[in-house]
Amino acid sequence: MSKLAWAYEAPLRDMRFVLEHVLDAPAAWAACPAQAQLDLETACAVLEQGARFATGRLQPLNGPGDLEGCRLEPDGRVRTPAGFGAAYQAFVEAGWPALAGDPAWGGQGLGLLLDGLVREMLDACNHAWNMYPDLLHGAAATLAAHGSEELKARYLPRLVSGQWLAAMALTEPQAGSDLGLLRTRAEPRADGSLRVSGNKIFISGGDHDLSDNIVHLVLCRLPDAPPGTRGLSLALVPRLLPDGTRNSMSCEGLEKKMGIKASATCAMRYEGATGWLVGEPGRGLQAMFVMMNSARLHVALQGLGHAEMAMQNALRYALERRQSRAPGPRGEQAGAADPIARHPAIRHALLALQAQVEAARVIAARAGLALDLAEHHPEPARRAAEQARAALLTPLLKSQLTRLGFEGASAALQVFGGYGYVHEYGVEQSVRDARVAMIYEGTNEVQAADLVQRKLLGDRAAALQALLGECEAEAGACASAPGLEDFAQALRGQCDAARAALEALLAPRDPALLLALAPDVMEALWWLLSAWAFAASARAALRAEPADAAWRQGKLERMRYGACWLLPRASLHWNRIISGAPALPELHAAQ
Amino acid sequence: MSKLAWAYEAPLRDMRFVLEHVLDAPAAWAACPAQAQLDLETACAVLEQGARFATGRLQPLNGPGDLEGCRLEPDGRVRTPAGFGAAYQAFVEAGWPALAGDPAWGGQGLGLLLDGLVREMLDACNHAWNMYPDLLHGAAATLAAHGSEELKARYLPRLVSGQWLAAMALTEPQAGSDLGLLRTRAEPRADGSLRVSGNKIFISGGDHDLSDNIVHLVLCRLPDAPPGTRGLSLALVPRLLPDGTRNSMSCEGLEKKMGIKASATCAMRYEGATGWLVGEPGRGLQAMFVMMNSARLHVALQGLGHAEMAMQNALRYALERRQSRAPGPRGEQAGAADPIARHPAIRHALLALQAQVEAARVIAARAGLALDLAEHHPEPARRAAEQARAALLTPLLKSQLTRLGFEGASAALQVFGGYGYVHEYGVEQSVRDARVAMIYEGTNEVQAADLVQRKLLGDRAAALQALLGECEAEAGACASAPGLEDFAQALRGQCDAARAALEALLAPRDPALLLALAPDVMEALWWLLSAWAFAASARAALRAEPADAAWRQGKLERMRYGACWLLPRASLHWNRIISGAPALPELHAAQ
Repeated sequence: MSKLAWAYEAPLRDMRFVLEHVLDAPAAWAACPAQAQLDLETACAVLEQGARFATGRLQPLNGPGDLEGCRLEPDGRVRTPAGFGAAYQAFVEAGWPALAGDPAWGGQGLGLLLDGLVREMLDACNHAWNMYPDLLHGAAATLAAHGSEELKARYLPRLVSGQWLAAMALTEPQAGSDLGLLRTRAEPRADGSLRVSGNKIFISGGDHDLSDNIVHLVLCRLPDAPPGTRGLSLALVPRLLPDGTRNSMSCEGLEKKMGIKASATCAMRYEGATGWLVGEPGRGLQAMFVMMNSARLHVALQGLGHAEMAMQNALRYALERRQSRAPGPRGEQAGAADPIARHPAIRHALLALQAQVEAARVIAARAGLALDLAEHHPEPARRAAEQARAALLTPLLKSQLTRLGFEGASAALQVFGGYGYVHEYGVEQSVRDARVAMIYEGTNEVQAADLVQRKLLGDRAAALQALLGECEAEAGACASAPGLEDFAQALRGQCDAARAALEALLAPRDPALLLALAPDVMEALWWLLSAWAFAASARAALRAEPADAAWRQGKLERMRYGACWLLPRASLHWNRIISGAPALPELHAAQ
Repeated sequence: MSKLAWAYEAPLRDMRFVLEHVLDAPAAWAACPAQAQLDLETACAVLEQGARFATGRLQPLNGPGDLEGCRLEPDGRVRTPAGFGAAYQAFVEAGWPALAGDPAWGGQGLGLLLDGLVREMLDACNHAWNMYPDLLHGAAATLAAHGSEELKARYLPRLVSGQWLAAMALTEPQAGSDLGLLRTRAEPRADGSLRVSGNKIFISGGDHDLSDNIVHLVLCRLPDAPPGTRGLSLALVPRLLPDGTRNSMSCEGLEKKMGIKASATCAMRYEGATGWLVGEPGRGLQAMFVMMNSARLHVALQGLGHAEMAMQNALRYALERRQSRAPGPRGEQAGAADPIARHPAIRHALLALQAQVEAARVIAARAGLALDLAEHHPEPARRAAEQARAALLTPLLKSQLTRLGFEGASAALQVFGGYGYVHEYGVEQSVRDARVAMIYEGTNEVQAADLVQRKLLGDRAAALQALLGECEAEAGACASAPGLEDFAQALRGQCDAARAALEALLAPRDPALLLALAPDVMEALWWLLSAWAFAASARAALRAEPADAAWRQGKLERMRYGACWLLPRASLHWNRIISGAPALPELHAAQ
């Protein structure tokens, strides 16, 4: 059975299909002078190299890293599992951290769409390892947007290249989702630097042995700062000072966690550590949001990676493992038992996973494209619209892809049965690893509140209106494509429900009730997006690959499964938004 | 924060409410001469003692047992974690294994309803520990129903008392859900014994140090047995032979698992081990089903225990932890942040868990009552009806309570946020432990197939018709109770949908399509049962405890949350059963 242990084949064909046929990325690249050097073959060559690195270098370290974990040495340094450091050196030497970096600072400028597809593969193969470089891009973007020229010159080149790594220091014991409660202090020194003191917890990669220097971005309070989030400032606090000496900061402990055990989750102590302000005093949260938004999309891709990995392995196992006779006509190899892939329950589990993973990839890639267009498109209006699109998609992707990653891994465990629950096949590690993504970078409940309060009501739903327009156009295109009427109808049904729901949401309403409906809004909008992705993928499959009838039929079947079997889940949520819901009672202590 | 670590307060008040007011168990006991000695105060005293044992002896061993795990010693004996053996001795000395045992063999005859409530508490406090005695009752019942007089006399008294423990040896590497593929052989010897040879895997408690003797019930094949399940026989194979020597069987390895690490999951080898036939040759599966049905209900109770534990702890944490201001009027202690219990997302999570746990306890207790009435009621027709009711409820409870246990633990982890993902609070262990229950004793997919094929179509849905009659009577009673019209309406809606669905199910249909709808049938019927439990509990709360208005209001609010916010989930499933669904495509290897 060991040949059935967790293995990964990068979904390069589907990625190419999404770039070329669903999103027509080459046209978008051609429209943006900064990305005009990118074409489909270059992009696919990058993805192929990324797949090679992920499967060749990272996947072999995934299981062993889980068993070995990290340890805090007596010298105060965190040691990562065997092979992690060497893999990171190879990663830097191959230029991967710079993929989407700004060419002004040594980056390759290939954009976040491509970067996201590469990340999906890295995360699928080794979520824990990929935690270390995961914050690099966001840290560089934060610094580029808000840092002083001196700080940028000193830190950006080595962050963009990945020579130095980054950490994001927000959480404190009393302050998780509520950053307004942070207490870490920063006192200005005469030389313009800050003296930073406080304790932070749950700091991923706060210390490790992959790079000498680690650049911490620390949320803190200047003297006399007001309470709440308006009193927060952002400080850059490096592990090594410019003169090469150690800064006054240390990792005081590592968390023992359910999963991603090879990722060092540090309790950090800053004891008058030297730092420098990034951005304006009291505007730390605004600066940090650059990093957080980037991190939220990356977390979404962790979920997608887990879901793809789970789906592939469950499918391979289901095609191999024979138990009981399935209903229906006997297959060619009919014997005492059929592959479990022929049993309806397993078909449901896998088709649901396939349809959702493929739709999720389209939606995540659309968000990556939106970020690239927001950065590079020559027309300001288009840039603004794409920025709003990305902002709308971010909480949806973070919440729904992390859920898909965890539930997908758990579904794969179920397909493997008892073999899924034991350690040796790797399935249970995926379940444990995937679980964290629903919590960090803003819990999925925080994402739902962000979606309703900021992304919908914040701009009177302008971004959603634009999205709905595109969805309706796709429904129209499907309606006139032969054999896609059911997709058109399914998508149009979601659009109509969304328009009615939007009207209900924009009507004046008790904010408590609005928040009580936030989980419904999250789910419903995700199914709208999924309906769009099912339809757009089906239509693209008709256009693409006429020579490969089996591939096309498989794609259509999976998308149709999504449209027929999954989309009905949306009605409950639309109905509740449209018709309203009873007030939520308060919780009381047990009586 | 350590005061917020996983702790348990037995839900004795709710258990008493279910016994006294929802199910009127005292009336049922009074109707059965064999149970006439039971009354409410006796039952509650037993539950109180059970709670004391579970919280005092088992819960302290739960976290340490997870860390220590089991080990296979060089002498071939499996060692359980520190304290497990002593706790088991105390368990036996207090008479707990005999609680529901047949008085003819030294049992206390207190019945499976009470036994189930005690089990829920044991499972909540230490799932892994409770795996060891969990099979005792089923093994004794199997032996009592199918064993020879000699075997019964030799083994039953010590199984009923718990002096010896039992193991159920079914699974082989090639045979999990499909027992027809089993290969273990049994050859008759001249003295009437069997010589049993083969390899079994995933044998819970196959070896351990809690009892000297371990009585294995082994599915095997006699010479010339036909292939498939009709060729299976059941053998009793004890670890120690009647003369006190070791039998030729050994534990060859322990599985490294995601959770329940303190429960020994053994790979067993029988090398010409001595055993004795239980039941007729070739009728092993029928004999084993006595044990499996009992085990399935026990597994359901594991799920319920996990869900209750998760709900309690998440609630306690949510009332304590303060993050951000909640919408709505300021509470008395309004400050910079409110308890997260006031935030709508957390209220949803906890109300959903509370409503489902309380409904699940009612339904599980109803199944326990059905088994007791099936055994002891003086009228044969009532006995048969209650047997059919228990058979119908078994796959529903196994599937849905284990799902609730896992999802509930995961929901609690989400409420705890980052603290839930680290080891020290105990939440993540619950998620890992709870996951297995969806797999073993027949995966939840096997339960869904069993529900549709055997429990519904097997008797042309007679058991469901009877259940529907009771549900409609409850809806009628609610309709005339002041203030419960919404419960009546919700329950009647489920009943009407169920009748329409039943008609569709009983119409001749392609068996493949029926199986494709099995997950929908499972979910829909569970919501019907939940609607009944919400309504029956609400009505009982109105009758009960008029003096405790706060308790009554809390119960009504939780049940109403279930009826208003959760029941709409059923529509999708009823609609699909009634209207039909498109055919499921086949799965193909990745292209």
